[in-house]
Amino acid sequence: MKVFIVHAHPEPASLNGALTEIAVSTLTEAGHEVRVSDLYAMNWKAAVDADDFGSAATHPLSVAANSGSAFTAGTLAPEIVAEQDRLRWADVVILQFPLWWYSMPAILKGWVERVLTFGFGYGVGEHNELKYGERYGEGTLAGKRALLSVTVGGKELHYTDRGINGPIDDLLFPIQHGILFYPGMTVLPPHVLYATNRLSSEDFSVAAKSWQRRLLTLADTEPVPYRRQNGGDYELPSLVLRDGLEAEGDKGFGLHVATARS
Amino acid sequence: MKVFIVHAHPEPASLNGALTEIAVSTLTEAGHEVRVSDLYAMNWKAAVDADDFGSAATHPLSVAANSGSAFTAGTLAPEIVAEQDRLRWADVVILQFPLWWYSMPAILKGWVERVLTFGFGYGVGEHNELKYGERYGEGTLAGKRALLSVTVGGKELHYTDRGINGPIDDLLFPIQHGILFYPGMTVLPPHVLYATNRLSSEDFSVAAKSWQRRLLTLADTEPVPYRRQNGGDYELPSLVLRDGLEAEGDKGFGLHVATARS
Repeated sequence: MKVFIVHAHPEPASLNGALTEIAVSTLTEAGHEVRVSDLYAMNWKAAVDADDFGSAATHPLSVAANSGSAFTAGTLAPEIVAEQDRLRWADVVILQFPLWWYSMPAILKGWVERVLTFGFGYGVGEHNELKYGERYGEGTLAGKRALLSVTVGGKELHYTDRGINGPIDDLLFPIQHGILFYPGMTVLPPHVLYATNRLSSEDFSVAAKSWQRRLLTLADTEPVPYRRQNGGDYELPSLVLRDGLEAEGDKGFGLHVATARS
Repeated sequence: MKVFIVHAHPEPASLNGALTEIAVSTLTEAGHEVRVSDLYAMNWKAAVDADDFGSAATHPLSVAANSGSAFTAGTLAPEIVAEQDRLRWADVVILQFPLWWYSMPAILKGWVERVLTFGFGYGVGEHNELKYGERYGEGTLAGKRALLSVTVGGKELHYTDRGINGPIDDLLFPIQHGILFYPGMTVLPPHVLYATNRLSSEDFSVAAKSWQRRLLTLADTEPVPYRRQNGGDYELPSLVLRDGLEAEGDKGFGLHVATARS
């Protein structure tokens, strides 16, 4: 397999650095091809702006429209094109990052905003009265698998339903559903390492082994069964979930994951 | 009142630009003091790195620890100190931004990461066996009100419980609860403007009026009743919500908002 790791941490000698190193060595030794975009090392510009679009930038600037024109005309900044090429190349995409303020680091959010342009990450497929494009399970990145590898300072108990921060699956939903599933990727359950603020070297050995197991089972891990936009679960054109598909008690984000019943 | 607006859009002649202009003029005319941090105009650096901490940066870098040392020693980058001063000055903080990939723009996330340092935004108060610091309703920014003003390209129906993107309150929970309530602010219900992709000039007039109404009622708008960490709803030291406080059917993020019953 071809595995593309997007790495977002400023310090190579960090836990995140170690996890990416483990991923590269484990996957390479298992015969896979690996490429890494180390965003801090690349000095990745986080803020989308007119410079991204070359001659397709208009006055006033329109981020969505200009990114689509630049994508079509081939005037996107070269570093954006390179990342899009890596995404096209990959069978599996791994985002490696620390959970900062309950989301991904700004530098990685800026990678999402700049690389997933109109025509590539969104605005794909026919949009008409009956169809709202190809997204949520369809799109440019369909067929690829995606995995979040996240380090979390706090305790796992704090990230449960009744834990003070709220459940990790819901905190990650805007990323897993809204960024990975949206352009078509098949999303695997996240790999989350908790309590990293007080990780002993013994804890690290255990964590490293569990990470290696995840890496060596990427091809056959059961994905999160998010509902496909155009798969029949949503009414068209309203894009509202049909009645009766949910399990009892489902609410909010949970409604958008297919359950045994549906 | 003193109102601090953090504005995150690259184009002044945009809807977001117009909403911030309306906020400045409406609030100023009503006798309030207003300051704006226009992050794109300031060329705000989004990525937290060693340069933020001056002589407090260590090798290897530790973002949390170094930000705390730099805060205490007064070696934080001047633009970070200036933003902290504006937060201290403010009675009300407004974040104005477009919803990009179901969250705030990278440049604003980078403002959060760099300005809310250890000792200022987190790591505040005593941490011991019985107390997990002052956060979620307590902390440096306690007593201030916070409001998100968000523009959304898609339709409101798509951002409901059964709508394909999931409910807006849950999508914004990591920001409202995890970034605003966490350092102590009182969070008002968000002001969300939908379907901005096809906003007519008539729609804009309606939207402008509704925005002005929100701005002129900032002082007495009923806040979102997020549960306080140290207010009795959570068991200590586990920080797990006590049994029996929730309304029937509450789940996930909804559990962390006090209901009529509790």
